[in-house]
Amino acid sequence: MSDEPKPTRRAVAPELEKILYEPLPVLDHGFIRVIDYMGDDAAVVQAARVSYGRGTKHVQQDRGLIRYLLRHRHTSPFEMCEIKLHVKLPMFVARQWIRHRTANVNEYSARYSILDREFYLPDASQLALQSTSNRQGRGDRLSDDEATAVQAKLAEGTSRAYADYVWLLGEEEGSDGPGLARELARMVLPVSAYTQWYWKVDLHNLLGFLSLRADPHAQYEIRAYAEVLMDLVRRWMPLTAEAFEDYRLGATSLSRQGLAVVKRMLAGEAVTQETSGLTAREWRELMESLDRTP
Amino acid sequence: MSDEPKPTRRAVAPELEKILYEPLPVLDHGFIRVIDYMGDDAAVVQAARVSYGRGTKHVQQDRGLIRYLLRHRHTSPFEMCEIKLHVKLPMFVARQWIRHRTANVNEYSARYSILDREFYLPDASQLALQSTSNRQGRGDRLSDDEATAVQAKLAEGTSRAYADYVWLLGEEEGSDGPGLARELARMVLPVSAYTQWYWKVDLHNLLGFLSLRADPHAQYEIRAYAEVLMDLVRRWMPLTAEAFEDYRLGATSLSRQGLAVVKRMLAGEAVTQETSGLTAREWRELMESLDRTP
Amino acid sequence: MSDEPKPTRRAVAPELEKILYEPLPVLDHGFIRVIDYMGDDAAVVQAARVSYGRGTKHVQQDRGLIRYLLRHRHTSPFEMCEIKLHVKLPMFVARQWIRHRTANVNEYSARYSILDREFYLPDASQLALQSTSNRQGRGDRLSDDEATAVQAKLAEGTSRAYADYVWLLGEEEGSDGPGLARELARMVLPVSAYTQWYWKVDLHNLLGFLSLRADPHAQYEIRAYAEVLMDLVRRWMPLTAEAFEDYRLGATSLSRQGLAVVKRMLAGEAVTQETSGLTAREWRELMESLDRTP
Amino acid sequence: MSDEPKPTRRAVAPELEKILYEPLPVLDHGFIRVIDYMGDDAAVVQAARVSYGRGTKHVQQDRGLIRYLLRHRHTSPFEMCEIKLHVKLPMFVARQWIRHRTANVNEYSARYSILDREFYLPDASQLALQSTSNRQGRGDRLSDDEATAVQAKLAEGTSRAYADYVWLLGEEEGSDGPGLARELARMVLPVSAYTQWYWKVDLHNLLGFLSLRADPHAQYEIRAYAEVLMDLVRRWMPLTAEAFEDYRLGATSLSRQGLAVVKRMLAGEAVTQETSGLTAREWRELMESLDRTP
Repeated sequence: MSDEPKPTRRAVAPELEKILYEPLPVLDHGFIRVIDYMGDDAAVVQAARVSYGRGTKHVQQDRGLIRYLLRHRHTSPFEMCEIKLHVKLPMFVARQWIRHRTANVNEYSARYSILDREFYLPDASQLALQSTSNRQGRGDRLSDDEATAVQAKLAEGTSRAYADYVWLLGEEEGSDGPGLARELARMVLPVSAYTQWYWKVDLHNLLGFLSLRADPHAQYEIRAYAEVLMDLVRRWMPLTAEAFEDYRLGATSLSRQGLAVVKRMLAGEAVTQETSGLTAREWRELMESLDRTP
Repeated sequence: MSDEPKPTRRAVAPELEKILYEPLPVLDHGFIRVIDYMGDDAAVVQAARVSYGRGTKHVQQDRGLIRYLLRHRHTSPFEMCEIKLHVKLPMFVARQWIRHRTANVNEYSARYSILDREFYLPDASQLALQSTSNRQGRGDRLSDDEATAVQAKLAEGTSRAYADYVWLLGEEEGSDGPGLARELARMVLPVSAYTQWYWKVDLHNLLGFLSLRADPHAQYEIRAYAEVLMDLVRRWMPLTAEAFEDYRLGATSLSRQGLAVVKRMLAGEAVTQETSGLTAREWRELMESLDRTP
Repeated sequence: MSDEPKPTRRAVAPELEKILYEPLPVLDHGFIRVIDYMGDDAAVVQAARVSYGRGTKHVQQDRGLIRYLLRHRHTSPFEMCEIKLHVKLPMFVARQWIRHRTANVNEYSARYSILDREFYLPDASQLALQSTSNRQGRGDRLSDDEATAVQAKLAEGTSRAYADYVWLLGEEEGSDGPGLARELARMVLPVSAYTQWYWKVDLHNLLGFLSLRADPHAQYEIRAYAEVLMDLVRRWMPLTAEAFEDYRLGATSLSRQGLAVVKRMLAGEAVTQETSGLTAREWRELMESLDRTP
Repeated sequence: MSDEPKPTRRAVAPELEKILYEPLPVLDHGFIRVIDYMGDDAAVVQAARVSYGRGTKHVQQDRGLIRYLLRHRHTSPFEMCEIKLHVKLPMFVARQWIRHRTANVNEYSARYSILDREFYLPDASQLALQSTSNRQGRGDRLSDDEATAVQAKLAEGTSRAYADYVWLLGEEEGSDGPGLARELARMVLPVSAYTQWYWKVDLHNLLGFLSLRADPHAQYEIRAYAEVLMDLVRRWMPLTAEAFEDYRLGATSLSRQGLAVVKRMLAGEAVTQETSGLTAREWRELMESLDRTP
């Protein structure tokens, strides 16, 4: 893929052009590389105006329209932009990522090819205890000594696994390995091994990915990718990125009952969990979102 | 959307750039206009090579690889290209078109806006009797007199319907119409009325669309669009277009039993329907595909 | 399709069984008929517990888990239930409905078959002026006289259109029509004509449909279908229906800025639009959702 | 999920009811278990007849119609049936499986829960050399000695990996492990570890899965699952299964050029690769499909 500039009459996103093809590092061996894109903020507006036709007689500001669309979940104009990425990522992250189905994928095949000796080894700052309050999260950091011991254990495990892989393949000079088929030999590799793929997605589905994966409840390792993606969206579509952060990432949903509680509080009533009609958990979540924890 | 050439480092398809934004006429008032695209033949190859990784040590010819991918239904690399079109089309064609679900759409909304006075009026050459052999097809052409009578009937019907629409809307100077809501008034328009939309689709799904809609069994009116789309694919991705015509559009599928018949015939046996194990209909279809109709 | 009771070991939803195959009327000629379904509230819980595995050592109440899943947008367990419907609906409603892509559809084909003489004729109570405040909505009702005139105009238009259709087809005894192919003759029918289809969808996508189509901003005619569907969900999955009404249909989303305003108000500050950082429109929408319009 | 028989008026597939909830073994620790299903052969026919409406005046035989639909790729009626399965499978198989996007999935989460000590250990009969002719396949079997050595290596590797996992989790009585968060500890497990999920799919997409995964080019391990699935389809929908085997699994596609060659051969010409217009590879594939290899 040559990257010599060529003329085009299509929409161009200048800030994204600057970093095209450049691997943006994520975790210890991963990256995200923009391969191609279609559209920009103006393309969202243009698609929305097809729907409104002559109905929009006065030119609305693009920013206002984009904010309106996002606020009212008129999602189809955001599907009119598309981005294609080359991503290198640990297999356990890939297994979370692929659950986002509305996207196109070409993954490196370990049936055809041999995987490199690259495994995710978490930084000591990321090694944490199982959370006691959240079944799927992390709690306090390990002590430095424990972190060192864990890193040594992880490194040793991946070394042995990769040595087994190489032996089974028997392709190295002087190997006495059996020459097992690649599709079988790869079975010994842990899910910390890095894979890579091309991933192509429309902007609406990319924002859906970010809603879930840029969230604090997402596992740190996929969140690290989501943060780089969020930066890419800011470069590519600054108006859409801003509206998304205001109306989706930074937004809060109040349930029917939660809304009733807020109205009573605004009317001056001293609502308690007991009088709220909410369960203890719902009450705690509502008070947290309103910064009213004692 | 400015169409001044600007520099990009992305893949560029020069033949498609030439006709960007240009309305390519279809039927009497319709068009297809390319708004944007992503990728080219080389992008298919590039995506396929991610999968093969180091496995493809020797550079294969792009053409050979594209043909291999299409022949063996390795479809995901074709999903890595995308095209965005502006299409104007009769509503009854739109209703067939939209059944292809894996695409993005923004349609002109007659809830917001007023539809133009444009209806599909078939050319006399397209006015045909109901087929007697095929429940969903056309048979012989109408006589010239009949065709003229039908065209008059169609024109008269759309005139009256549009007059009703305008009266109901009551928006014209001096109208005594009631000012009915647009979302209701549009109910009187026949499905020959033209609508328009932005339609964005990946190359794999576009080829799927063409397999069905460029086929002689498709209704003429949607086939007219499919033929323009096929021309666009030839401009955009000449190697893929060629392989698609060889392996999909021009291909024939032999059933398990049909294959057995061909083998027996190649071995010199004079197979008849009776000895073939096929039903009369399957036998006829097979003989037709082999040009062996008496 | 026999409807004799037969034994099954699958999940059964008794309240839904009661109305299986029964056409539930919608609008003047439409209906929704449940043909088949898969799963019930317990099936949602069961699918969620696959994910949690041994992690859920204590049995949670089904209701609590379903509410948790919906509140936190853990949507995949709701995809594990499915419903298949037979729907009769005007074509302009069908054109809105089909925009929900993640569903399966078999529609009556007017290429093969002849459509019945059935058109949607709105009740006088539904005939309204174009809204002046909302480009895509209805305003005040027409006067009784105007409504009568509109109904007469609509009835007359559909009569003429159907007469044209029948003449073009030329299939009636003694007709002097040309016998035009069905796929062409249907062009003259207005979008108020009724069509019908089988529509199959998973519960998650059905709830997405209801979020948009049971909303007051949806056009009345599709909302009429959405309300019958919502009743079906209440029969089929009472716990999910309740949670959906609390956390989705009845919920309000506060933007980042809207949340900041609410926090300031709860702290006793007298926030105005000017000091809120919101646009006039956003301020109005926020005050409306909090019932604080002057 | 009780499995007491209860009455239903829905379509029932008696042969599938017999094995409902029963784990059908696959590989060494895997299984497929039918949890629920919707529809049967008659439901395909019923959905097709909605499309044809009054067009099918004479009752066609169901078998003939199903064969017609499959032969002519009228796929939407097959989407009207659905099946829900509980599957236990090695992670490397799960990674191939999940590429089929049009399905619903709830997978066991190793962020929440602890994985069992279960790994796929191939039978000696499945241990084969890398193919020399096919970059992604298996060649000759290993000798018995080599197979034994490989199995020992695999077993030893998984033992060590699971011991590391348990130590990192630190949840066992008396463990001196650090109590690492589950979402991190699972990183050390190889992709031969078993996971499990609920997987729900419509019949059309299930047949698409089988076309690719019941094919000899698929990796043996996923083919083992595909074969059990094919048996399930035979139980559930015998007419569809038969048509699928005749028109899809057992069918051959002739390219435009391949068809021309067959016609010339049937006309008595002694075509050779040189005079065929095919590449050497295409010629070889064609001759193989016609059983005409020397």
